[in-house]
Amino acid sequence: MSEKKILLTEKEIPEKWYNIMADMPNKPLPPLNPATRTPIGPEALAPIFPMGLIQQEVSAEKWIDIPEQVRDMYKIYRPTPLFRAYGLEKALDTPAKIYYKYEGVSPAGSHKPNTAIPQAYYNKQEGVKKILTETGAGQWGSALAFACNMFDMECEVFMVRLSYDGKPYRKMMMNTWGASVHASPSKLTQAGRTILAKDPNSPGSLGIAISEAIELAVQSESSKYALGSVLNHVLLHQTIVGQEALLQMEKAGDLPDIVIAPFGGGSNFAGLSFPFLRLNLDEGKKIRAIASEPASCPKLTRGVFRYDFGDTIGMTPLLPMYTLGHNFIPAPIHAGGLRYHGAGVIVSQLLKDNLIEARAHHQLECFEAGVLFARTEGIIPAPEANHGIATAVQEAQKCKEEGISKTILFNLCGHGNFDMAAYDAYFSGKLSEHELTTAEIDSSLAELDTPTIA
Amino acid sequence: MSEKKILLTEKEIPEKWYNIMADMPNKPLPPLNPATRTPIGPEALAPIFPMGLIQQEVSAEKWIDIPEQVRDMYKIYRPTPLFRAYGLEKALDTPAKIYYKYEGVSPAGSHKPNTAIPQAYYNKQEGVKKILTETGAGQWGSALAFACNMFDMECEVFMVRLSYDGKPYRKMMMNTWGASVHASPSKLTQAGRTILAKDPNSPGSLGIAISEAIELAVQSESSKYALGSVLNHVLLHQTIVGQEALLQMEKAGDLPDIVIAPFGGGSNFAGLSFPFLRLNLDEGKKIRAIASEPASCPKLTRGVFRYDFGDTIGMTPLLPMYTLGHNFIPAPIHAGGLRYHGAGVIVSQLLKDNLIEARAHHQLECFEAGVLFARTEGIIPAPEANHGIATAVQEAQKCKEEGISKTILFNLCGHGNFDMAAYDAYFSGKLSEHELTTAEIDSSLAELDTPTIA
Repeated sequence: MSEKKILLTEKEIPEKWYNIMADMPNKPLPPLNPATRTPIGPEALAPIFPMGLIQQEVSAEKWIDIPEQVRDMYKIYRPTPLFRAYGLEKALDTPAKIYYKYEGVSPAGSHKPNTAIPQAYYNKQEGVKKILTETGAGQWGSALAFACNMFDMECEVFMVRLSYDGKPYRKMMMNTWGASVHASPSKLTQAGRTILAKDPNSPGSLGIAISEAIELAVQSESSKYALGSVLNHVLLHQTIVGQEALLQMEKAGDLPDIVIAPFGGGSNFAGLSFPFLRLNLDEGKKIRAIASEPASCPKLTRGVFRYDFGDTIGMTPLLPMYTLGHNFIPAPIHAGGLRYHGAGVIVSQLLKDNLIEARAHHQLECFEAGVLFARTEGIIPAPEANHGIATAVQEAQKCKEEGISKTILFNLCGHGNFDMAAYDAYFSGKLSEHELTTAEIDSSLAELDTPTIA
Repeated sequence: MSEKKILLTEKEIPEKWYNIMADMPNKPLPPLNPATRTPIGPEALAPIFPMGLIQQEVSAEKWIDIPEQVRDMYKIYRPTPLFRAYGLEKALDTPAKIYYKYEGVSPAGSHKPNTAIPQAYYNKQEGVKKILTETGAGQWGSALAFACNMFDMECEVFMVRLSYDGKPYRKMMMNTWGASVHASPSKLTQAGRTILAKDPNSPGSLGIAISEAIELAVQSESSKYALGSVLNHVLLHQTIVGQEALLQMEKAGDLPDIVIAPFGGGSNFAGLSFPFLRLNLDEGKKIRAIASEPASCPKLTRGVFRYDFGDTIGMTPLLPMYTLGHNFIPAPIHAGGLRYHGAGVIVSQLLKDNLIEARAHHQLECFEAGVLFARTEGIIPAPEANHGIATAVQEAQKCKEEGISKTILFNLCGHGNFDMAAYDAYFSGKLSEHELTTAEIDSSLAELDTPTIA
């Protein structure tokens, strides 16, 4: 057997993030002020984000330097390995060559620290002492807790009550890195108190937790807010994944025909695929990029392209995105990181322009793919990661049917160490599939009174 | 900052394990038949282990080839990184240089697959279809489940009832790799039924679980038993850790003055230290090797060197070891992997000959060191690993006091993803320290009627 892993040295950690905005044939439409419905500028974001990140949010520069201190911190787990999936190929008896980039080697166990680290860094640069955020299942919260700890900053996390009570290990992980974690809704904010007054037993939601984090963040000059996906600067930071993978594929003497990644808000998918899409845009390559989303939250495959809010409550600017409607409540699937109603604006525009593809998978199909992967490659994936595996398996099977060999690369974005209860539910037949009807989607979209896009 | 991680390529994975037995000035005394108290030969082990492993158990060859299929399977996670602990050094303000080898990158999260893989391989070579074993907290059981799965063999694990009920995630991990897991004591064996007849609510023990696994293993030609530490062949397999670390230290242009590893039965410590002790034995180097054990189970620092049983019930051959007595019940500390009454025979002989050192740490001191590590290096260690960190911190502090720089290398043998409840107990002040009295040790040793050693 030739090499199973293609490794890079620390010196080969990319020195720049790739900003696809510079190369897009159609730039995203501007965000709108929700009250006036007129375009807003970057200054509107200043109360919640530091200028270093806001500049990246609106930058048209193709390459953005990764600060030396960020690269140093990346060295805790980067470069991450790229694997040739010999075991999975054999099990599928496919002529396809399958590769995967493994981001589960980070201390927080996923790709999320790739943006948590620079976000902490740019905040620190501008004198911010504390960063507030929300977290659902806990992946993002623990990544930010880790990053803030490493830059000696405070971190305060509002964790959806349902997860806070039901998934305590992620909370303890955040505590270990020194973060304070509150069950949301909490009595610490007006938003939380209002919700609790109506329903003292509220299980919370990401929308509420975002409101609480922002409310506290804007109360002090020395505190800011951070988001783990969707926004342009978050997608930008994640391109470190694809930049490394590109180098590694070159070392393997190969180039993918298809790149695949799970899709929640877009940063996972953007991180792997954008550096390969650059080859299409710059050099006329024809690499297909497929976003893998849950069938229970199918904004890319069944949503509409129009302006919508980034949060549930409607506090953010209006963004041009594929959306199921900001009031859409996804079924409680185990891939908590993919339960988001909309898609980041860059990815939405790329899909609109047919430069990328999307595919939806049912939960049971994803776990089936994940267990096959664990038993052939040895690594137990996070439920989110199983979506990318499901697409890769489909493409490999298609290669077999058609008798052709393609090169497939997917992002194994995290390990499943904190998700064993989900696997247990799968094995014991307790995992159900929520079949989302067209009527349910129509009903969610019918509530929208946000601007449409021609 | 120079390189934080020193990485090797897959081609650099060592091709041989190092067998320290060949270089020991005094060879270990032979095991004794418990009935006749006369030396037994390797054939006595044939009912429970395959010949490939028994040959390694008694081999006097200095270098033993790692089979190509084993090296291929190692590539799933090996070579593992070696880190320079810049963050920890800075926090300690020490002139010492601190390095650590990180074994938590394996799919099972610890160093245990280093021996689980070859054990599965040699069993497979001899036509064994199923391997049985016991597990306490679950580290070893999940490593063997992983390895058996990769070699397409059955794996059956008897998991101590207390852990089975209280730490379900490790069980689910084993299930995900296809292993069957029974709470022990079980009704599947005579040993289990006997215990349950006396106490239907027995919480179980490692000793009982070993008895159950062996009882079933010997009932069929096609099944064998496997042990995760203590025995010579297990220590041998773990030397892959130190062999890699030696190469990595050379790349760093450094050589450790002190190597440190946690001590349970000996394989963790042997794995890192033996390849460095070879430099002492072969080349007259003066590298100190320190075994870090829990103060609540201090066989090396407070036990006696005499013949004793490897298990609690007294089924195994009598082994010449440092022991607290096979009836000694360690306090329920969170470092479950270190709760073993005795030390493997090779390590015991080395300690007897003053070729290695040992140090005991209290649980609270270990968690304090572990949290310092998590907050400065970013990785949350397993409670077992915290023992090695505690020794490294002490040595680094000593360097500061004495104003000298030494090079310290320790084995970060696993991550703490499955141990967050232990950290939570630590932070909430619920971790207690069991102060082991001399009377307690004396009382355990007084029960022993096994042969003494002059």
